[in-house]
Amino acid sequence: MEKISSVQSSRVKAWQKLQSKKGRQASQTYLLDGWHLVQEAINHGGKLRAIMATTEQLAQHSEELPLGVPVFEINIEIAKKLSDLVTPQGIFAEVTLPVATRAPQFIHDGAWLFLDGIQDPGNIGTMVRTADAAGYAGVVFGHGTVDPYSPKALRAMQGSQFHLTLTVGDLKEWTAAFTQNDMNVYGTQLDKSAADLFTVPAQSQFALIMGNEGQGMQPELATMTTQNLYIPLTGQAESLNVAVAAGVAMFALKTR
Amino acid sequence: MEKISSVQSSRVKAWQKLQSKKGRQASQTYLLDGWHLVQEAINHGGKLRAIMATTEQLAQHSEELPLGVPVFEINIEIAKKLSDLVTPQGIFAEVTLPVATRAPQFIHDGAWLFLDGIQDPGNIGTMVRTADAAGYAGVVFGHGTVDPYSPKALRAMQGSQFHLTLTVGDLKEWTAAFTQNDMNVYGTQLDKSAADLFTVPAQSQFALIMGNEGQGMQPELATMTTQNLYIPLTGQAESLNVAVAAGVAMFALKTR
Repeated sequence: MEKISSVQSSRVKAWQKLQSKKGRQASQTYLLDGWHLVQEAINHGGKLRAIMATTEQLAQHSEELPLGVPVFEINIEIAKKLSDLVTPQGIFAEVTLPVATRAPQFIHDGAWLFLDGIQDPGNIGTMVRTADAAGYAGVVFGHGTVDPYSPKALRAMQGSQFHLTLTVGDLKEWTAAFTQNDMNVYGTQLDKSAADLFTVPAQSQFALIMGNEGQGMQPELATMTTQNLYIPLTGQAESLNVAVAAGVAMFALKTR
Repeated sequence: MEKISSVQSSRVKAWQKLQSKKGRQASQTYLLDGWHLVQEAINHGGKLRAIMATTEQLAQHSEELPLGVPVFEINIEIAKKLSDLVTPQGIFAEVTLPVATRAPQFIHDGAWLFLDGIQDPGNIGTMVRTADAAGYAGVVFGHGTVDPYSPKALRAMQGSQFHLTLTVGDLKEWTAAFTQNDMNVYGTQLDKSAADLFTVPAQSQFALIMGNEGQGMQPELATMTTQNLYIPLTGQAESLNVAVAAGVAMFALKTR
């Protein structure tokens, strides 16, 4: 086991670069922060490149670390450089980014969530976690949706990236391919000219599109769906948080 | 209109104190940050004590400000002192805290959300916003739930505090009084020995309890409910974000 004690170490500098999308794209890896997320990667086949842990964290978890993955002992100053938290736990893993290509024309089943221009990393992570919990097959990040491998998105995701397919794609292509394959694609709108979500029968092979927090779906995409749905709001709030709306719609649409 | 140009002004110092619960309790007021929230207060009968705005914001909104409320012209340095955002919009209102007493024994209708030990201000605000959107009558904050008038909670709330009743209470008292009044009180648990949420018929007079992010409901409260419910999770995620779970349950339980 290598011990790193300087925040100036080239390894530390390389790991710090994983805080940005650019850095993650360059190395094709991302960073997990905290034991819960590291454990999810270990238990669910995440491709670990390195584990970094303070002396204290190593004492707690060394028995549970997988063989064959390089382990680096770090100190709390380094942990603070690697984390965006004020008081990081002190254990991290560098994990390979999944190869994110799926051809939608070959998909014929499962419930899918399409994200069109979602901007908040916390919303992204929460929606992936909810899709996992609701038994969805995968989440497709449309162009314009923020990267799901940022520290904040991963924290909200709680390890769900290891449980279902995450991929990037052109949502117009995905929508066209799904409808071609006789899978319904449901858009969501605030517009009451759309159909009431709760009138649609639950099903097992379809896609649900959630749009941008402020603007909703791209207008062109909205014209390509099987049907657009709204959640009936009976109070005075004009809208829901997008992650809450996604949760309500995901559970309502999918056969349980 | 008074113009304030020093961050050392006693008024600025008094407004800054509203960032903490202690400060809000002492003055019995809280601070709204940004035009959207100030506008909600103006349009929905919020009791405004003062409006503070930069020259630029005054130019945009002076026509829309209510008569009889003192307006203070501030600069961007002061705006930054009053806000927890890096780039505040530059318009604020000081608003009277609602008198938060409702006696549950006199409540005989409506859908109510009880929050038992919720810790994250963003979750609190999102749940109030969702309760409003779903047409709930009110939200009761149990002891141990964080204060709903923090800047972060208010931002997630989006002005919904002006649309429904928010009150603080002992949830055991509320649960006992509601069941006494023949209103169902539903707890939520991760435990599959509880009943499947989606098997409960939608209704219009009841309470739903959401428990702490990590620990769930207090065990004693769980024994006092009409029934405890779980959301059937068919994937690998062990739980949902509490605000998402609340959204799914609020829409499933309430007659639309």
